[in-house]
Amino acid sequence: MKRIAVFSGTAHPELASAICRGLRTRLSPSSVTTFSNDCLGVQLQANCREADVFIIQPLVPPVQQHLVELLLMLDAARGASAARITAVIPHYAYARSDKKDAPRISIAARLVADLLVTAGANRVLTMTLHSAQVHGFFSVPVDHLNALKVLAAHFRRRNLRNTIVVSPDLGHAKHATEFARMLKLPVAAGSKQRLSDDRVTIDAIVGDVRGKNVIVIDDEIANGGTIVEALAKLRELRVKRIAVACTHGLFTGKAIERLRAQSDIEEIVTTDTVPILEEKRLPNMRILSVAPLLADAIGRIHVGKSVSAMFDGAT
Amino acid sequence: MKRIAVFSGTAHPELASAICRGLRTRLSPSSVTTFSNDCLGVQLQANCREADVFIIQPLVPPVQQHLVELLLMLDAARGASAARITAVIPHYAYARSDKKDAPRISIAARLVADLLVTAGANRVLTMTLHSAQVHGFFSVPVDHLNALKVLAAHFRRRNLRNTIVVSPDLGHAKHATEFARMLKLPVAAGSKQRLSDDRVTIDAIVGDVRGKNVIVIDDEIANGGTIVEALAKLRELRVKRIAVACTHGLFTGKAIERLRAQSDIEEIVTTDTVPILEEKRLPNMRILSVAPLLADAIGRIHVGKSVSAMFDGAT
Amino acid sequence: MKRIAVFSGTAHPELASAICRGLRTRLSPSSVTTFSNDCLGVQLQANCREADVFIIQPLVPPVQQHLVELLLMLDAARGASAARITAVIPHYAYARSDKKDAPRISIAARLVADLLVTAGANRVLTMTLHSAQVHGFFSVPVDHLNALKVLAAHFRRRNLRNTIVVSPDLGHAKHATEFARMLKLPVAAGSKQRLSDDRVTIDAIVGDVRGKNVIVIDDEIANGGTIVEALAKLRELRVKRIAVACTHGLFTGKAIERLRAQSDIEEIVTTDTVPILEEKRLPNMRILSVAPLLADAIGRIHVGKSVSAMFDGAT
Amino acid sequence: MKRIAVFSGTAHPELASAICRGLRTRLSPSSVTTFSNDCLGVQLQANCREADVFIIQPLVPPVQQHLVELLLMLDAARGASAARITAVIPHYAYARSDKKDAPRISIAARLVADLLVTAGANRVLTMTLHSAQVHGFFSVPVDHLNALKVLAAHFRRRNLRNTIVVSPDLGHAKHATEFARMLKLPVAAGSKQRLSDDRVTIDAIVGDVRGKNVIVIDDEIANGGTIVEALAKLRELRVKRIAVACTHGLFTGKAIERLRAQSDIEEIVTTDTVPILEEKRLPNMRILSVAPLLADAIGRIHVGKSVSAMFDGAT
Amino acid sequence: MKRIAVFSGTAHPELASAICRGLRTRLSPSSVTTFSNDCLGVQLQANCREADVFIIQPLVPPVQQHLVELLLMLDAARGASAARITAVIPHYAYARSDKKDAPRISIAARLVADLLVTAGANRVLTMTLHSAQVHGFFSVPVDHLNALKVLAAHFRRRNLRNTIVVSPDLGHAKHATEFARMLKLPVAAGSKQRLSDDRVTIDAIVGDVRGKNVIVIDDEIANGGTIVEALAKLRELRVKRIAVACTHGLFTGKAIERLRAQSDIEEIVTTDTVPILEEKRLPNMRILSVAPLLADAIGRIHVGKSVSAMFDGAT
Amino acid sequence: MKRIAVFSGTAHPELASAICRGLRTRLSPSSVTTFSNDCLGVQLQANCREADVFIIQPLVPPVQQHLVELLLMLDAARGASAARITAVIPHYAYARSDKKDAPRISIAARLVADLLVTAGANRVLTMTLHSAQVHGFFSVPVDHLNALKVLAAHFRRRNLRNTIVVSPDLGHAKHATEFARMLKLPVAAGSKQRLSDDRVTIDAIVGDVRGKNVIVIDDEIANGGTIVEALAKLRELRVKRIAVACTHGLFTGKAIERLRAQSDIEEIVTTDTVPILEEKRLPNMRILSVAPLLADAIGRIHVGKSVSAMFDGAT
Repeated sequence: MKRIAVFSGTAHPELASAICRGLRTRLSPSSVTTFSNDCLGVQLQANCREADVFIIQPLVPPVQQHLVELLLMLDAARGASAARITAVIPHYAYARSDKKDAPRISIAARLVADLLVTAGANRVLTMTLHSAQVHGFFSVPVDHLNALKVLAAHFRRRNLRNTIVVSPDLGHAKHATEFARMLKLPVAAGSKQRLSDDRVTIDAIVGDVRGKNVIVIDDEIANGGTIVEALAKLRELRVKRIAVACTHGLFTGKAIERLRAQSDIEEIVTTDTVPILEEKRLPNMRILSVAPLLADAIGRIHVGKSVSAMFDGAT
Repeated sequence: MKRIAVFSGTAHPELASAICRGLRTRLSPSSVTTFSNDCLGVQLQANCREADVFIIQPLVPPVQQHLVELLLMLDAARGASAARITAVIPHYAYARSDKKDAPRISIAARLVADLLVTAGANRVLTMTLHSAQVHGFFSVPVDHLNALKVLAAHFRRRNLRNTIVVSPDLGHAKHATEFARMLKLPVAAGSKQRLSDDRVTIDAIVGDVRGKNVIVIDDEIANGGTIVEALAKLRELRVKRIAVACTHGLFTGKAIERLRAQSDIEEIVTTDTVPILEEKRLPNMRILSVAPLLADAIGRIHVGKSVSAMFDGAT
Repeated sequence: MKRIAVFSGTAHPELASAICRGLRTRLSPSSVTTFSNDCLGVQLQANCREADVFIIQPLVPPVQQHLVELLLMLDAARGASAARITAVIPHYAYARSDKKDAPRISIAARLVADLLVTAGANRVLTMTLHSAQVHGFFSVPVDHLNALKVLAAHFRRRNLRNTIVVSPDLGHAKHATEFARMLKLPVAAGSKQRLSDDRVTIDAIVGDVRGKNVIVIDDEIANGGTIVEALAKLRELRVKRIAVACTHGLFTGKAIERLRAQSDIEEIVTTDTVPILEEKRLPNMRILSVAPLLADAIGRIHVGKSVSAMFDGAT
Repeated sequence: MKRIAVFSGTAHPELASAICRGLRTRLSPSSVTTFSNDCLGVQLQANCREADVFIIQPLVPPVQQHLVELLLMLDAARGASAARITAVIPHYAYARSDKKDAPRISIAARLVADLLVTAGANRVLTMTLHSAQVHGFFSVPVDHLNALKVLAAHFRRRNLRNTIVVSPDLGHAKHATEFARMLKLPVAAGSKQRLSDDRVTIDAIVGDVRGKNVIVIDDEIANGGTIVEALAKLRELRVKRIAVACTHGLFTGKAIERLRAQSDIEEIVTTDTVPILEEKRLPNMRILSVAPLLADAIGRIHVGKSVSAMFDGAT
Repeated sequence: MKRIAVFSGTAHPELASAICRGLRTRLSPSSVTTFSNDCLGVQLQANCREADVFIIQPLVPPVQQHLVELLLMLDAARGASAARITAVIPHYAYARSDKKDAPRISIAARLVADLLVTAGANRVLTMTLHSAQVHGFFSVPVDHLNALKVLAAHFRRRNLRNTIVVSPDLGHAKHATEFARMLKLPVAAGSKQRLSDDRVTIDAIVGDVRGKNVIVIDDEIANGGTIVEALAKLRELRVKRIAVACTHGLFTGKAIERLRAQSDIEEIVTTDTVPILEEKRLPNMRILSVAPLLADAIGRIHVGKSVSAMFDGAT
Repeated sequence: MKRIAVFSGTAHPELASAICRGLRTRLSPSSVTTFSNDCLGVQLQANCREADVFIIQPLVPPVQQHLVELLLMLDAARGASAARITAVIPHYAYARSDKKDAPRISIAARLVADLLVTAGANRVLTMTLHSAQVHGFFSVPVDHLNALKVLAAHFRRRNLRNTIVVSPDLGHAKHATEFARMLKLPVAAGSKQRLSDDRVTIDAIVGDVRGKNVIVIDDEIANGGTIVEALAKLRELRVKRIAVACTHGLFTGKAIERLRAQSDIEEIVTTDTVPILEEKRLPNMRILSVAPLLADAIGRIHVGKSVSAMFDGAT
């Protein structure tokens, strides 16, 4: 069996360490330098010739920096004769740019997928892509894990009576309907319109939420604008207890400020696909770790066991 | 200016002719042969050296036959030194296989996109893909036209008071919401679960349809199972007048039988992206032609005018 | 050693089973579905991550169906992280389209070779290609087995005195000359002209066949037209006993009818590279199995033993 | 219309000049240098930015030198921003290595085709490939001209009564049968066995040549061994007048010596796809020029007229 | 003639405007957005279908941002059916990472070249690459302009008696020797050793500089460390008047501070391949514009005139 | 562990044998044939299915012959299903063509790198490339060994007092400075100008060599012109003892004659990356073997041990 070698970029070393603990492996050292002309230089500081290499790097802010760093690490591993290189991208941020909704733009989720392959990625391991179709943007095998299972396990321990799952966006309600089905709850959805990247409006809630407890779920919370809009609409409809859930808790811009101002949110549940700074951790925030899931998947990829089996009969 | 050469496979010669009329061009002849060992042979029967070639072939039943035929035609055009080859696929049937919702399946929409490029397609012109992300499966430029505009123009001439647009599937309501916005109507959606490829169940309608006139819209009607389920649920909710609309009217299997049995459908509106046999044309069916749209797009592609401009300020 | 995983498409499951028996392996299950829009869906129903995958599918009628099925299975295996994927195509029907004998046609044998690679084939195992050059159409390693050895072993047990091997086509006599050399027999050939795909004429037999027993051999019999023409010409030349042999017994169209009508054929010898329906099995037909040959080759490919050694010192 | 630019390597500048005369174009200058470390350096000495570039280089001895020179010229043209680059290879010598008739050899005709594309060839123009299938080895468009027409025109002016066309090799009689059909003559063939690259034996002539005038035709004459063997066999069968014809007159090794010794050859007819040194020009040798054919083809390729039309209704 | 369309990223819009003035063309508008998840989005805001597109973006700080922006713009232009796309990169910063001088690093100059091609660049226009070999890292045609000509023209107007050109680095003296030859001056070089990315030491000056006026020239000045070291060494050797020249004036980190402290520098001459902020413009700094050179080259590329001719007989 | 299989082309079988002795492996047999049409044919004469194949072939004169031979061997190994193929090229002659110093030439070092990959090379092992950047021309992993270590070990055993290392070319002094640093010696360089491929002039020596012992070092000596020029200049400056060193001792053209005429050269030190005929071995020539270095590297590549570690702490 080829040996495993796990490297981490600078985006989320804590997650990489947690994954390595799960794998009972040491994280291999690497360095990232910024040259005086602002170019990046990376060095993998352990021999990885003929090794099964995994490079862990979620595409979190500063995204461009982390992306180029990842590309350089992939290329370095290839040049260093790695036997196989897996890009482990727990948060593939560019997945949101998955269609051409204006003329002369890039479908960046496809472009970045191609760049990763050009740089040397032989496979990709990722979680909760913005849309399931993004899987098909990659020309190399992808293992696409689902953090909904982790979120659902958490909420199953809560009282779910009189509860409805709410997707803020009717046109993008796949995650919410899947989540609702896991918890055997009904589902409602906002009729959302995007005015600009950071301004949305939700003109109606489709489905009967009145008087219910709600779990508002989205795949990602960035600046929180959508969630805040949804909550405003839900309050008009007299919902009772409110929980918010997402896989990728980016909390950029004014997100934390906005969420803190929503004093009626009982719980904000997210995962650690994205690093969350200490000062962003609100008292009502729960961060569930996906490290065990990723470690399990990496172990299975390494030895050739089924990854899909991890999700069979998921409760 | 390079000359244009339009060829048609055997899938939908009527549409090809209509497009050529729109372009004021003659359809170039071609032949398709089935050899005694059941292999296909195609021949483009007009010189297309240095021409701007368009090959028109929707992927309609028998899909595999039409797909291989298209691949052979693309390859023949390339070998014949065409300057540029555009695959015109008004109905890209494989778009439905756009994600990996079970282990060890093919994301066939991506595979077929790659096959088309391997065979020689330099660009693709298509309509109303099952999901907008499928655009990103192609490594060559795609012009993705939208037939909703054609359907909307039709319904705008109807009385739309007290009317709501209904998507049979909450998890796939993009088309319906876009259509509703064009007509300035509200939207509702079914909570659909697929039991198997040809059996679905809709356990609830999310949104308030009671007492309203409904336009049930989907991108495609194949065997009609989903529509019938949706109508059953809608009738329970006492909706009034019922219209059904779709871009791709495949009407396979028992579709026509089932739709005929729904005597309360006032109108079934579809387009000619797919050929509809005379015997399938129900009295309440309206087939709108997309040939003018396709001819306009081909003309623009040929001379380098903006295609997106066709959809600016769309009424 | 990586484990082996053998899958079969729907073209010839009997051959796949026979091969697996030879390999002392279980055939891995798979399913093929036709969706309501006539698209195909395949699923490999056993984990094949890091396995050495072999997918068995001769391109027999309906050829297009079986080809697309094979492409989908290759893609599914790749997406499922197979370590290596071998397309086992005992009858590569498209090999006949190996040159450009008319303007603006596809050299489909090359195109299909490229499609197989695009879909994920890392290597190909095939038998008795229509012409040896087709090997060079593939950009991946090919093991090209020769069933002549199996046919020759059969005839070696017959009385071969006063016997001559006859190729129906002078311009394509490679197989016949090789076969004759194996049996140490002289060779003659028809001067054949193809009028159309299913009509040929043989205006002369080049070589002295008068009063001899003949074995008419071709790589493939499709609708039998060529054979019937050759026999007519041979009878004019007063040949004695007649045997017919081929590797690929397609027997399409009126082939069986025609062959049944040639009451003086003593024996029709073919192999099971192609499935032959019960009702097509004439009393004078002998079907030799190539499964042992294919199983031997697959076993050697799997462990890295020489495949060419199978044909060294062949008697 | 882009301008045309024709360059010649060092293999056959006379042919290049003749072609340019036919095209009424000046041959663009280029230089080839051998550096002190024996590497080649080429320079195209005329601007070819955005030009339609044709580089003329048959693969004649020293083949490796001429091949690498051609590859460097293609790459130089690409780097110099040529709009399109056509490799004009009147004799594609590597076409003979078109199949894998021994284990662990290269199908060099395919490899060299791929090398040409890697180096920058966008298309290929060639003549009388050893086998028609070699066309399919190229991943770029090929125009494959046929010099048989030139040879046939020549013989049509001779007395062809009681004449038969003879292919030295039954297993490779395509050219001879096509040639015979052009002249409306019967055909015979030798049963040839290759003992080594330069030793063949012909153990029989299949077909009735006794007392006939013969035209022995092959695609190429290299060291002449095959022809000499065939003539010996034919003389045994008391043929009368003997003519020899080939497209590619390489006349390597002892060919000229051998042919001179066959005093009963009335005429040796060949073409100038290959340069023939003055001292090799036997008194009975006729060298027909293919330059008009190549110039016509290049002209048609340049302006986008049909090349296949050159061979329609060819007399 | 296809129309030209010039777009600029956000790295150096002033240079883009100057180039467009030189071309007598309007700069086409484009927008760059940072989404709330920190991903970039670009839109080309003018139709560029079938246009000859040039995208101007030097890789200046923040390099990663500008690189990804450029990749997105290239992809957008390709998706928008540009006829040809040229990446105009006046400063290709990653050229410095051109070799593997430590184990397991990326040769980033090659990787970035491949990324640009993956994203859609059909050709590249750049200036004064760190080493001439980087040209060969691109798989597409590159026009590599030389700003030395601009710098030399400037110094030719100065008094050059008793002057010597000094390269700070003996191992990288190509630019200096070429520059010296242009000015017909002798050359000297420092024996430089790099201690780390931002610390170098120059232990000797090879060549006789004592009592001479010096022009210290390098391709790029980043943080100025090398220049300062060289000047210290030169002063020990009692040089007289000092001038400093470079093509790419990055002036990062403490560069300006350091250069200001070297009060004996008479003139710092650089170009505008890189934008230089107002506050970095020292009184003794001269910024020469390369816009005329780039405009000339773009114009020639567009119409197919020789670019190398720009440097013939350069004075 | 996959087994290793080492093959040698005809360029340097002695080196291949020496490497195999170092590896304690038998050299696998192969044959190279020149066909009667001057094409090459190669056969690997040992099974290499699933083997870790190394093909040893320096690009020495006749370079084109050896290059094409290597390409054919790579392709044969790929077709024979080798698990991995490493081209071992101890002297990569085309490395000298590494930049575009004239218009419309090929950067042949990049082209040949691409040809090797097209032919099947999965990796490359080479020594002392003309410039370090050539490493980046390869799209596959390269192990680039340095023979300076071998040369330095030799000179360390000599008396190095009052000694200076001299590079004949200031613009290409990387090797000399690295070598000088290994021996802790100062360095000087000639200001060389190339008049043509085989005529150079050195107009000055930069650095103080007067009265010193010199070691003139270059990466390669071809026809010796540069060395002779440098020595003439050095003698003018009254240097004392003279030694000459290089990695690649090609000694083409008049090199040996010229070097023999320089009677004051104490020692010419080179390696066996290139075969040196008996008659070229001057009495003062020392040929050091790189076979141990190459054997060590191949062994490490085979088992996945670090190759860079071979050069750590090199004395």
